[in-house]
Amino acid sequence: MKLAIGVDLGGTDIKVGVMDRPGVLLKKATLPTRAADGPDQALDRLAEHIRELARRLGLRTDEIAAIGVGAPGPIDRDAGVLIAAPNLPGWENTKICPRLSVALGAPVSLENDANAAAFGEFAHRIAAGERISSMVLFTLGTGVGGGVVIDRRLVRGSYDSAGEIGHMIVEADGRKCPCGQSGCLERYASATGISATFQERGGAAVQMTRDICSKAERGDPIAMGAFDVAAKMLAIAIINLQHLLNPELIALGGGVAAAGNVLLEPVRRYARELTWRLVDDLPRIELAVAGNDAGMLGAAALALTNQQ
Amino acid sequence: MKLAIGVDLGGTDIKVGVMDRPGVLLKKATLPTRAADGPDQALDRLAEHIRELARRLGLRTDEIAAIGVGAPGPIDRDAGVLIAAPNLPGWENTKICPRLSVALGAPVSLENDANAAAFGEFAHRIAAGERISSMVLFTLGTGVGGGVVIDRRLVRGSYDSAGEIGHMIVEADGRKCPCGQSGCLERYASATGISATFQERGGAAVQMTRDICSKAERGDPIAMGAFDVAAKMLAIAIINLQHLLNPELIALGGGVAAAGNVLLEPVRRYARELTWRLVDDLPRIELAVAGNDAGMLGAAALALTNQQ
Repeated sequence: MKLAIGVDLGGTDIKVGVMDRPGVLLKKATLPTRAADGPDQALDRLAEHIRELARRLGLRTDEIAAIGVGAPGPIDRDAGVLIAAPNLPGWENTKICPRLSVALGAPVSLENDANAAAFGEFAHRIAAGERISSMVLFTLGTGVGGGVVIDRRLVRGSYDSAGEIGHMIVEADGRKCPCGQSGCLERYASATGISATFQERGGAAVQMTRDICSKAERGDPIAMGAFDVAAKMLAIAIINLQHLLNPELIALGGGVAAAGNVLLEPVRRYARELTWRLVDDLPRIELAVAGNDAGMLGAAALALTNQQ
Repeated sequence: MKLAIGVDLGGTDIKVGVMDRPGVLLKKATLPTRAADGPDQALDRLAEHIRELARRLGLRTDEIAAIGVGAPGPIDRDAGVLIAAPNLPGWENTKICPRLSVALGAPVSLENDANAAAFGEFAHRIAAGERISSMVLFTLGTGVGGGVVIDRRLVRGSYDSAGEIGHMIVEADGRKCPCGQSGCLERYASATGISATFQERGGAAVQMTRDICSKAERGDPIAMGAFDVAAKMLAIAIINLQHLLNPELIALGGGVAAAGNVLLEPVRRYARELTWRLVDDLPRIELAVAGNDAGMLGAAALALTNQQ
């Protein structure tokens, strides 16, 4: 039995999963990151945890086929180094792959976490019997991230910076973004963006997207309007993806997608209303299904692919 | 020697080229399409021309490794059928591949002409020694078309409708497009779009982009403004491509790109001005180099790939 380990390295938690084929989780666990204590202790505990997992499965760690780590970028994928991450202060230039592969004797590869999540969503659907070869995942959280799968392969880009869907410009000269652009999708369709629209239109200062969502469910026009703006901007991004890549599926994940139909219905309506009339080639638009496991699923699946 | 034939089927001309490796043309010729006389006579003349080409090269037609045809879409690629084309009236449902492969005894494959041109530009650059694996070609003509190459492969999309770059929305609620959308790139950056901006701003009714270009070169502010709008919209589309796919190169081709620096300089300036400040991952932006040969080069190169 060939086993792969997927790791999703976050600012709060480290998620670890064991898979015997892409997209199927045998076992999972969560460790605290204790980010402020620096990378050494975290990587030591992670290695020890993986050793323990292997022991329980009756394996030596050098019998693990592949270990994949998803981490917030930017990363140097070839070197397996985390360059920097806003929610992992003090972790600059952490040599994740070299350290773990020496500690465990198994091949370790590093991926951008949003790209890993997109490939995890894809692998999860394939494992469940879905027949797709191309999809785009939008991860709608505090910001908007994502990833692109074409012909069953993750699109990484020439500087490993593909899939930065949140910074597609959907409104020329629109809202200023901290990235330096104006009119980024993220400014409208993230939790931050929805909250900004809500307050801009006179809604009370509420902190959580789920509160605005509850209001929208109860018919509050300002809350509904905030989701409507997010949905229209998402629809424009989806239409642009459709024309450029013609993927089969758009999956909406992340905390904001927990709004379910409050978000999904207007996104579908706008996409159908605003797209062209020439060919009916709009992709399916669905909620993501792999949830919080997507990152580790994808990291493991990509690590296995890298071994082939 | 394995030879491939590339065909670019247009409303006016049929271009035919012979290649012994992707991106390198040994010989080329042009036949009139005589579109109004229907597909039978055109395909008969094309088959006869290919027979004659093979004869001169001392080959039987069934020794040709692959024949690739690029045609204006929509096409049914699997069946090798041209479904319809605005500038080939009466050619609906022409069985291009079945007819040519029976007539010639060689494998024939069909591609969308804009996608073929993108792959031709890519193959041409690779043959010339350039080391790239991803690029996007914008074909700026009466409309705006294009094609996407990722990891050395053409992105065709799930309904073969990828690369419709002209219909990316760059201005929400912008100019109406005959396709049914509003704010398509094509409405600003095609010859038609540049002409519309020029007249909208009070420029005299001139028909040709090259006349507006000459005026812009002489410093006419209205003409310069029309190219400026096209350039800004192209820059937004390029930034969106950058974030989504992070390609190495954007190539600008088609009749409008003959404007050279009148177009290229403001596109580069806007792209640099409007893109994010987080990572310097803007692709190179250049004029296309394969010119009118791109379609047949790409059709042949893709046909060879299909045989592998």
